[in-house]
Amino acid sequence: MSITNPTVTHYLAVNQPLQLTSGATLPEYELAYETYGQLNEDKSNAILICHALSGDQHVAGIDANGKKGWWDGYIGPGKVIDTDKFFVVCSNNLGGCRGSTGPTSINPQNGKVYGPDFPIVTCKDWVQSQNLLREHLDVEQWAALIGGSMGGMQVLQWAIDFPEKVRHAIVIAAAPKLSAQNIAFNEVARRAIMSDPDFHDGRFIEHDTIPKRGLTLARMLGHLTYLSDDMMGVKFGRELREGKLQYNYEVEFQVESYLRYQGEKFATKQNFDANTYLLMTKALDYFDPAADFEHDLSKALAQATAKFLVVSFTSDWRFSPQRSHEIVKALLDNDADVSYAEVKSEHGHDAFLLPNPHYEGVFRNYMKRVHQDTLAAEAQK
Amino acid sequence: MSITNPTVTHYLAVNQPLQLTSGATLPEYELAYETYGQLNEDKSNAILICHALSGDQHVAGIDANGKKGWWDGYIGPGKVIDTDKFFVVCSNNLGGCRGSTGPTSINPQNGKVYGPDFPIVTCKDWVQSQNLLREHLDVEQWAALIGGSMGGMQVLQWAIDFPEKVRHAIVIAAAPKLSAQNIAFNEVARRAIMSDPDFHDGRFIEHDTIPKRGLTLARMLGHLTYLSDDMMGVKFGRELREGKLQYNYEVEFQVESYLRYQGEKFATKQNFDANTYLLMTKALDYFDPAADFEHDLSKALAQATAKFLVVSFTSDWRFSPQRSHEIVKALLDNDADVSYAEVKSEHGHDAFLLPNPHYEGVFRNYMKRVHQDTLAAEAQK
Repeated sequence: MSITNPTVTHYLAVNQPLQLTSGATLPEYELAYETYGQLNEDKSNAILICHALSGDQHVAGIDANGKKGWWDGYIGPGKVIDTDKFFVVCSNNLGGCRGSTGPTSINPQNGKVYGPDFPIVTCKDWVQSQNLLREHLDVEQWAALIGGSMGGMQVLQWAIDFPEKVRHAIVIAAAPKLSAQNIAFNEVARRAIMSDPDFHDGRFIEHDTIPKRGLTLARMLGHLTYLSDDMMGVKFGRELREGKLQYNYEVEFQVESYLRYQGEKFATKQNFDANTYLLMTKALDYFDPAADFEHDLSKALAQATAKFLVVSFTSDWRFSPQRSHEIVKALLDNDADVSYAEVKSEHGHDAFLLPNPHYEGVFRNYMKRVHQDTLAAEAQK
Repeated sequence: MSITNPTVTHYLAVNQPLQLTSGATLPEYELAYETYGQLNEDKSNAILICHALSGDQHVAGIDANGKKGWWDGYIGPGKVIDTDKFFVVCSNNLGGCRGSTGPTSINPQNGKVYGPDFPIVTCKDWVQSQNLLREHLDVEQWAALIGGSMGGMQVLQWAIDFPEKVRHAIVIAAAPKLSAQNIAFNEVARRAIMSDPDFHDGRFIEHDTIPKRGLTLARMLGHLTYLSDDMMGVKFGRELREGKLQYNYEVEFQVESYLRYQGEKFATKQNFDANTYLLMTKALDYFDPAADFEHDLSKALAQATAKFLVVSFTSDWRFSPQRSHEIVKALLDNDADVSYAEVKSEHGHDAFLLPNPHYEGVFRNYMKRVHQDTLAAEAQK
């Protein structure tokens, strides 16, 4: 079933408080989400896509602004995640800035923009809120949960927290927790934002400004870690923007120009909220499902009943294949049904979003299994 | 010969203009340098140490402020670079902020602080100026040139530009040119400094301020790239500063605390000049000796007559062993006398400054050769 364009964002208003991992409570909230394809009669064909740091609910199709979904290459009729077969759902994470309640929303308790007062949320909290979306859609069990990077972490958390609600878990370019280096990169990005004088302790909206410099830097740094050294070499090498060396402090090499463009676009044209950026990086830092299980990932995953596909990319140095091995090993410790693919790619962490015949082949094949299990679930009813 | 403490900074005043690679001219300048040990009668035992990005002339001993030299572990009586045998010299690079003429110096043409008007200098320019220091010291040929990281690049440049002045070239943790990723990291650091409102287009001294936020960020990012992921894991893991999660945006993990401390110390206590930081990173970006030889490093090194020791460290991801292989290969293409060691270390790029038995063994052995060749040179006279 082809995607109806422009795509529409739906809102689920939750009027019950959400008890957060931090101890704080969110009194009420909305979740913004899009759906594609048709939910079948017995509601066994629903897939939830979990988004990464700067992602949102618009994962496929073309929205009212003419913008293509961030994973449109993989989702649609006849595509890897086939909307002819599946009902695909994607929601903006709580704390986001694309429609779900977050720092840019109004705090009902004082009528002002939340800004820095928006409570810190974790991966566990996201999964709790997404589970209410599942109930709202009247889906008993997701045919599959699918996510890359931070999205893959949510898939893992789902498999641990709501095992019976997850038939298949597809965890791509993820890690079971951040390394000290990962946290350090996040900290430099946060510091860039928070030390921007236009940040105003997070109350920049009230000051009618945005911490553009800080957000630009954070995004530049992010991009740097998403691309591989090799790929940057292939893409930019030491190419000069003006053809010859200028001997000044202006943008000189193509790679500088690219990064600055990406950073500025993110901060201005895409208008990403700086508080959301802080919050998302914190949720990444905090993600550590094994912590509740004596720091033993195998124990954490012992209760998971889903079948797993884990995918990593050879040139991903943010979440290297080694990190996926940790997940696979913990699953195998539990005799879980797990498929694993280490995909050769030059594109670094970004590879999970890009075309790649090996990746698509593995993914498509696995989705056939997901479809077969969906049909089996249907037959059982 | 033990080092006389406190160490003393000498100044070489050069009253002739220096024609720079950029086309600009520096009318006059001073070079700040320290020396340790005794120059022998025939002046055949002099070694020049070239410093890295944030280094300076104070490489060994204790200075008047009680500060130990940045490579003191390797330089001194009986140490790897033995001041009983060698006369060791180290100068602050032109454009630096520790005594040599640079952005914090007074521009003789208008009596004001140079600031951003200080011309961009390159590795080639540094070597030209260091060659005047060689003449001043009346050294015909360096027994060895030694440098790590950016220092190693200067050693390579010396071997190409003044082949007959270099008996041994010791190039540690370096690269024959920066990769696109290396340049990108430098660009994010520069952007952090230049977008700090206290930067004032480089005229922050006139505004009686420093771009502390930007410089802190730049240094945090630098540190991140000097340490290996593994080492950060060993050193910090996911240890919490307060013992338990705080769920706020304050420093939470030990690695954050460490990085912030390093960044702030650099910007304030160490008072490193922001314009110097920009200039040094630019010189790194520009370094590409092969560019003048049809982009063929083998051709560039064809005129080198020195004997070489090249050292890399397994966990160095800033200038990985692969980058040293490029240098070694180009030297072997010319049938040069080259020794190469790939030292196992968890300490990333920083390894070149740290104790390591394998590294010290290789280095010490090679220095015996340097000493033998020094004695041979002495005997010839």
